Amino acid sequence: MDEFDIETLAEPELSDPVLVEGLPGVGHVGKLVAEHLLEELDGEPVRRVYSEHFPPQVDIDEGRAKLASAELHAVEADGRDLLVLTGDHQAQDAAGHYRLTDRFLDIAAEFDVERVFALGGVPTGELIDEYDVIGAATGDESIEELEAAGVEFREGEPAGGIVGVSGLLLGLAERRDLPAACLMGETSGYLVDPKSARAVLEILEDIVGFEVDFDSLEERADEMEEVVQKIQQMEGGQAATDDDLRYIG
Amino acid sequence: MDEFDIETLAEPELSDPVLVEGLPGVGHVGKLVAEHLLEELDGEPVRRVYSEHFPPQVDIDEGRAKLASAELHAVEADGRDLLVLTGDHQAQDAAGHYRLTDRFLDIAAEFDVERVFALGGVPTGELIDEYDVIGAATGDESIEELEAAGVEFREGEPAGGIVGVSGLLLGLAERRDLPAACLMGETSGYLVDPKSARAVLEILEDIVGFEVDFDSLEERADEMEEVVQKIQQMEGGQAATDDDLRYIG
Amino acid sequence: MDEFDIETLAEPELSDPVLVEGLPGVGHVGKLVAEHLLEELDGEPVRRVYSEHFPPQVDIDEGRAKLASAELHAVEADGRDLLVLTGDHQAQDAAGHYRLTDRFLDIAAEFDVERVFALGGVPTGELIDEYDVIGAATGDESIEELEAAGVEFREGEPAGGIVGVSGLLLGLAERRDLPAACLMGETSGYLVDPKSARAVLEILEDIVGFEVDFDSLEERADEMEEVVQKIQQMEGGQAATDDDLRYIG
Amino acid sequence: MDEFDIETLAEPELSDPVLVEGLPGVGHVGKLVAEHLLEELDGEPVRRVYSEHFPPQVDIDEGRAKLASAELHAVEADGRDLLVLTGDHQAQDAAGHYRLTDRFLDIAAEFDVERVFALGGVPTGELIDEYDVIGAATGDESIEELEAAGVEFREGEPAGGIVGVSGLLLGLAERRDLPAACLMGETSGYLVDPKSARAVLEILEDIVGFEVDFDSLEERADEMEEVVQKIQQMEGGQAATDDDLRYIG
Repeated sequence: MDEFDIETLAEPELSDPVLVEGLPGVGHVGKLVAEHLLEELDGEPVRRVYSEHFPPQVDIDEGRAKLASAELHAVEADGRDLLVLTGDHQAQDAAGHYRLTDRFLDIAAEFDVERVFALGGVPTGELIDEYDVIGAATGDESIEELEAAGVEFREGEPAGGIVGVSGLLLGLAERRDLPAACLMGETSGYLVDPKSARAVLEILEDIVGFEVDFDSLEERADEMEEVVQKIQQMEGGQAATDDDLRYIG
Repeated sequence: MDEFDIETLAEPELSDPVLVEGLPGVGHVGKLVAEHLLEELDGEPVRRVYSEHFPPQVDIDEGRAKLASAELHAVEADGRDLLVLTGDHQAQDAAGHYRLTDRFLDIAAEFDVERVFALGGVPTGELIDEYDVIGAATGDESIEELEAAGVEFREGEPAGGIVGVSGLLLGLAERRDLPAACLMGETSGYLVDPKSARAVLEILEDIVGFEVDFDSLEERADEMEEVVQKIQQMEGGQAATDDDLRYIG
Repeated sequence: MDEFDIETLAEPELSDPVLVEGLPGVGHVGKLVAEHLLEELDGEPVRRVYSEHFPPQVDIDEGRAKLASAELHAVEADGRDLLVLTGDHQAQDAAGHYRLTDRFLDIAAEFDVERVFALGGVPTGELIDEYDVIGAATGDESIEELEAAGVEFREGEPAGGIVGVSGLLLGLAERRDLPAACLMGETSGYLVDPKSARAVLEILEDIVGFEVDFDSLEERADEMEEVVQKIQQMEGGQAATDDDLRYIG
Repeated sequence: MDEFDIETLAEPELSDPVLVEGLPGVGHVGKLVAEHLLEELDGEPVRRVYSEHFPPQVDIDEGRAKLASAELHAVEADGRDLLVLTGDHQAQDAAGHYRLTDRFLDIAAEFDVERVFALGGVPTGELIDEYDVIGAATGDESIEELEAAGVEFREGEPAGGIVGVSGLLLGLAERRDLPAACLMGETSGYLVDPKSARAVLEILEDIVGFEVDFDSLEERADEMEEVVQKIQQMEGGQAATDDDLRYIG
């Protein structure tokens, strides 16, 4: 295997596609959105990316070993073509984040992607009621458009910038003159958060122009709600254990 | 020295050999099996692999310094040819795991290996009576065959996937269309575990088709049993010290 | 993107320019000086350096995402040409520090830089009244000149040498026969320290031969003074929180 | 600067030289021996090795900045030619240890070095009276010769092997068919230990065949003795502070 090993799974013609990234991160918000799109919409995997910058491991699914990877799926959403990037891993080292993101953008270029949306969560440190979506973008036009759609732009937020593939998709897309925006759902940061994912997805629908059913995301949100209630009932109100999160997430 | 320095020690002709990997890991289960095969069966070392991805050290054996390495031995087991991979070290970095595993598979290809077995332990966190063996594989046929031999395939196990060379042997072998399976003996995770090794070895014998004497493994198991009893007799029942483990392991 | 991606923003002719480095470090002393020079003096950005050795992130400024970078500005100070290097990040790995510094010196060579000043802070561990400036240099002539300007050279200081780009600018400049000196303002190490920055700037003015207004640096110093007083008023006199520092810094 | 930057300072003809390595390590034993040889014997620096695998820093000596490096000195000891390797730093990463050691052996080959001695300390965890020297070597002949000279070879020591340049000098020298041995003075591990250094040096003298004056090493030992006594007089008998060690060391 080389530093990167990119498998071609399909070569569909896409019309003005939009790249939607949802890799693991705070509250698994981006990943929940990406997975929901893959569940609800018609599409097919087009590329699988293996890399020595991913953790050195296989994931096990019903006994089947799968080498750590990220996948890009072509998905049709009410006539809009999406290229949805998701997976179970982030890069393991700083240079790896740069190089991996660059490969994702190479693939996006092969499909003539015209705009990039990086999805994620921004931790608030407390359980929240109203799920605002914070934004960042590579150009002022984007900022205005996102603000009109209800995205919040707050001075000094997110503090510390945006780290990992989501952040670099903006930074490296701009170097390629490709418009990119990041939509970050507010989330406690302690739990897998389908409600935050829904808030992000609603913004994405509005801007890109499509609609999906929210039922399965709602179900997940209800399950999480029960977990939260159980946690609050417990004396001391301790955070959910990893097992709880893993089960629901 | 280059990134890898591979010494050729012998070039035997092997007939449909099976690669058996037993590098250090949880409970030293895989390593115990590999070492037992080398002790009990006729064979010879065929390759020694040095790499800057191993820790920067020499091991000392009766005053003799030996550069960190992994070795592949050709071993004959009741007419079946095994290529046994073992050593004292894992790679030190994520990319190193990928590259090292790739080299091991290159060597396996030189000997026309037709199947890969990665051996290891899976930690249960408690001392155990019945030594189940958990499996993972690259294909459904393998899974069925292993299940018939008594290997357990459990939903969501091992949690967190399989990390290191054992995991990547499956992941990278599949990329080469080479069937691969991982046999993981349940073990407390606190102690070097010859009983778990025996459970794994019995499965391996059954699938590959050979038999070895278990006496020396039994002796090691008895020694460990004494250590466990001493530990349980101690007030507070604390875990064995490193020295105990080192002595027995 | 390659390991480095250097954007050319302008190509002015500079006359015997002096490189002034002020990247983030102890008390943000160097960075405060560099930013003050950019605020007070006429100039223009000439190069922007992106690198996979920077952290994998974008910084957000009023919703606009900016890929981690360092910038070099050509600045005119009373007829003296300065090449001011600043940014928000240091390299993330040892080799990255070496390689990044080497690129900065390559750019300095393009502009025929004749001398290098690396600016920083040296932590004393306590709040201080008199802001001495400690020095280090690549040649004895420089040391004499700096001593005459009031820079202190103390046996065994700074203990542990000078780490990061500031240190390597001296080490690698000497390998290129380029005179280089480091000016380190004493600072508690707990707070962003505009007073220490002023002490360093006064030395730099004296040696290079220019003057700038100190008003905005004084204002920052007054703001910090208030923070320090608030801290001292608090029971237990605990150190400022990150938020305080971030606000002022 | 490249990955390595090797400065040629002199090109003396050496007769059957022996490489003596004394880089920083446990008790600074190896470094003390190397420095003592440079102080007491006639010689000259022949190579200076800079590398991005060293820490990214300059050391400061009376205001002069010196880029992190290692040096090889040609030294004449009673008619025997020594190539003494010393410096203030070890490599910062695993691969760096391998690559740096390889370069040191390349330089040794340029001078036709016929044997390698890596010097170091082995920590006992307690203050000691009798300073035994533990050995390791690449060949059985060496082991016999060292044993005859009073070097101890103990089963399973040093536990964990020999890490860093000292260990790799043995491992990589053997790959080049160059005889190599490691002499490790027992030392508490808490203090810079000139007595342990003397014990190692006496063995080295005996095997290589030369004599040096021990006075300055004795003085250092006496200074350390005072430190140890002060420490033992202190209530609670706490370990020496870093400053004490730095002063004496």
